[in-house]
Amino acid sequence: MAQKPSLPKGVRDFGPEQMFRRNYLLDTIKGVFKKYGFMPLETPAIENLSTLTGKYGDEGDQLLFKILNSGDFLSKTDASDFEAGAKELSKKITEKGLKYDLTVPFARYVVMNQNDITFPFKRYQVQPVWRADRPQKGRYREFYQCDADIIGTNSLVCEAELMAMVNEIFCKLELKDYQVSISSRKILEGLADVIGATDKFSAFCVILDKLDKIGLEKMLEEMSQLGIPKSGLDRLTAILELEEDNTDKIETLRKVFIGSEVGIEGLNEVETTLKHMTSLGVAHDKTHFDLTLARGLSYYTGIIYEVKPTSVKMGTITAGGRYDNLTGVFGLEGVSGVGISFGVDRIYDVLDELNLFPSNQLGSTKVMITNFDETCLEHALGLSSRLRNNNVNCEVYPEPAKMKKQLGYANKKNIPFVVMVGQEEIDTNIYTVKNMEDGEQHKQTMLELIDFLATQ
Amino acid sequence: MAQKPSLPKGVRDFGPEQMFRRNYLLDTIKGVFKKYGFMPLETPAIENLSTLTGKYGDEGDQLLFKILNSGDFLSKTDASDFEAGAKELSKKITEKGLKYDLTVPFARYVVMNQNDITFPFKRYQVQPVWRADRPQKGRYREFYQCDADIIGTNSLVCEAELMAMVNEIFCKLELKDYQVSISSRKILEGLADVIGATDKFSAFCVILDKLDKIGLEKMLEEMSQLGIPKSGLDRLTAILELEEDNTDKIETLRKVFIGSEVGIEGLNEVETTLKHMTSLGVAHDKTHFDLTLARGLSYYTGIIYEVKPTSVKMGTITAGGRYDNLTGVFGLEGVSGVGISFGVDRIYDVLDELNLFPSNQLGSTKVMITNFDETCLEHALGLSSRLRNNNVNCEVYPEPAKMKKQLGYANKKNIPFVVMVGQEEIDTNIYTVKNMEDGEQHKQTMLELIDFLATQ
Repeated sequence: MAQKPSLPKGVRDFGPEQMFRRNYLLDTIKGVFKKYGFMPLETPAIENLSTLTGKYGDEGDQLLFKILNSGDFLSKTDASDFEAGAKELSKKITEKGLKYDLTVPFARYVVMNQNDITFPFKRYQVQPVWRADRPQKGRYREFYQCDADIIGTNSLVCEAELMAMVNEIFCKLELKDYQVSISSRKILEGLADVIGATDKFSAFCVILDKLDKIGLEKMLEEMSQLGIPKSGLDRLTAILELEEDNTDKIETLRKVFIGSEVGIEGLNEVETTLKHMTSLGVAHDKTHFDLTLARGLSYYTGIIYEVKPTSVKMGTITAGGRYDNLTGVFGLEGVSGVGISFGVDRIYDVLDELNLFPSNQLGSTKVMITNFDETCLEHALGLSSRLRNNNVNCEVYPEPAKMKKQLGYANKKNIPFVVMVGQEEIDTNIYTVKNMEDGEQHKQTMLELIDFLATQ
Repeated sequence: MAQKPSLPKGVRDFGPEQMFRRNYLLDTIKGVFKKYGFMPLETPAIENLSTLTGKYGDEGDQLLFKILNSGDFLSKTDASDFEAGAKELSKKITEKGLKYDLTVPFARYVVMNQNDITFPFKRYQVQPVWRADRPQKGRYREFYQCDADIIGTNSLVCEAELMAMVNEIFCKLELKDYQVSISSRKILEGLADVIGATDKFSAFCVILDKLDKIGLEKMLEEMSQLGIPKSGLDRLTAILELEEDNTDKIETLRKVFIGSEVGIEGLNEVETTLKHMTSLGVAHDKTHFDLTLARGLSYYTGIIYEVKPTSVKMGTITAGGRYDNLTGVFGLEGVSGVGISFGVDRIYDVLDELNLFPSNQLGSTKVMITNFDETCLEHALGLSSRLRNNNVNCEVYPEPAKMKKQLGYANKKNIPFVVMVGQEEIDTNIYTVKNMEDGEQHKQTMLELIDFLATQ
């Protein structure tokens, strides 16, 4: 008996409707990447486990999909390997895995091709990655990442350009309601300095990051337990209650951060980035200098930012920051860079919820030509060829079928126009064009028809 | 010590230059797919092994990349499984694998979504597939397939449209020297009938397929050993020596095939396909009705075809045919279809060898703006914003650096124009534009500059 097919948990098919929408989304993003001089890169799905392991922490290591060695994968094992358990055995029977993100393969690429790359190197990469996570709503085992990075320069122009790209991409996607939060890791270090938490930096950040969830009072309580003095906490409270605009906030903090060199550096970074953004024509109304922003502190070393929609309940849809040492783990020191990652699945859901996908996304076919019998068919094929020569996407219904069936097909495929080709049309060279949206019909000569459809 | 990174055998990075060329190639193909009404589909890299196993023969099964189950993959095994050897153990520790081609996942998709799909269903799919093959020149373990199929209709219009697509794609790619061979499985069955090899069909085809390699005499010898009578072999020789054009060959064979119903059917198929191709405006000079064409006979049931370049030494670059039962293995009977597959890697190599890739494929950036100091930088950023608003892809060099270094960057990235922004330019609002190809410099106002670059 034939098997009933199924998909593994956590992976998805993208049918035509989703593909049209995903392509609209990804093509918009890629178009802006190119506008700013980013170049495409693709790395393979399969990497050596030696490249991947140890780069994502213990939890990440456990989420790597490992590929069983080909052929007799047991040839180099014996019973003792089996007895040592899954973790030990896996080292002997797997050498390759599926990539977990785009950053580590990018770093590997840069190191392997360092002599051929022109720095500063601006690359974008839009590819699937794989994680053996427990699948749940919005979390998949195979999903696309969409990254742009500039490496080989410390210039804050890069940060500002990435922000300008965010602005342009969401503008093109007509997503108006979002907020960009921007800060620097150095701002957090400055904060820690001035409240007496310099030596408790990580723990301080973890608690600060919970502010939104647990509220000010509970946050202060936890910080107090951490050993931060009351005077420090009072100072922190005052700082967090600042409701000034970005420029004033920077000025106020210049006074607060006196004595913390790193804090002042952080302020300079944010200030310069905002200045460049202004030069790039980015209005500041969506940009919020957020002192509590604390993301990716295990790898980000400078400016950090994240984007959240404000009219839809959804987490971060885009985020990134500057890192000091992308390629050090592969032996190439001193390569600083800054990157951004667009959360494709989440942005898709936001556009869907706000009804922002262009209509008529199901098909790219503009016109279907009917097929009534053998004579009409040859004529229809000739017409289709002329239309395609004029760059009109079209289809001939492949079988002679009842009108209703053919129109139903065009309808389901969202094809906006149908051209009828019967004996009368062949004799007179005047065609009937049906607008599938309003049902109206018009008669047109071949040239009129081509003109009409080529400009629709 | 940091590790020296490497790539697994048989997989590749595609850097910017290759990506620009691959995108040119794939976008050309996809554009034509859409012009004929095909819709995009993507299926995941990861499939259940139950979906993949047994679909590609024993050899194919061995070439599947299997993914080790997550977590404690040994939990359902005991020592006896280990002793049973790799093949048996793999069944207990792997459930998923990487897709081996695009056809089986497509069939799975169709069966799982049969109630939502509008038939005839025209889909295209351009995705990587994986095979644990021994890597060698031109054979990779991860490579793209590029397929288009129409399913749910027996109409030969589909075959003809696929041939028209071949014509249009290679025309757009400016690849002029190629030959399309077309035939039908039924022609081979007809041949077998009329030479007395009806009951030795497979073996007959295997030997016939070797004609090019071993020559007529050796081929006849092998067929004789197979037990085909001398009278049959004489007849075959006469048929193979036919040097008529397609139409005459069909007429001649109509007499030869009297008595073989299937042979006559095959002739009708080829004749109708050629007629539809004529209606579609495809010149026949590149199409050769090739009686010895014998490909994919384990699954093709009707028209078969393949495309080979004629001015480059290279095998088949595109091929396909009609199959009767795509989805039967998953329980959905009676779905006939016809498909075509473009060999992306080989076509890439052909275009490369014939120097047919458009020049200036390394970059999409049209202009770089210099960066001399802080004041100039802000002005440059403003200019970049205006240029981008006019859809000019541009970059600002991120750091103040020596002119030579900045021009070197533009040169290596193949950026055709550089705009100098110094104090004089800011004061006068007249910019110096350097054409990087001929080295010439011109002075232009901002508006002239925008007009000039937007139309380059």
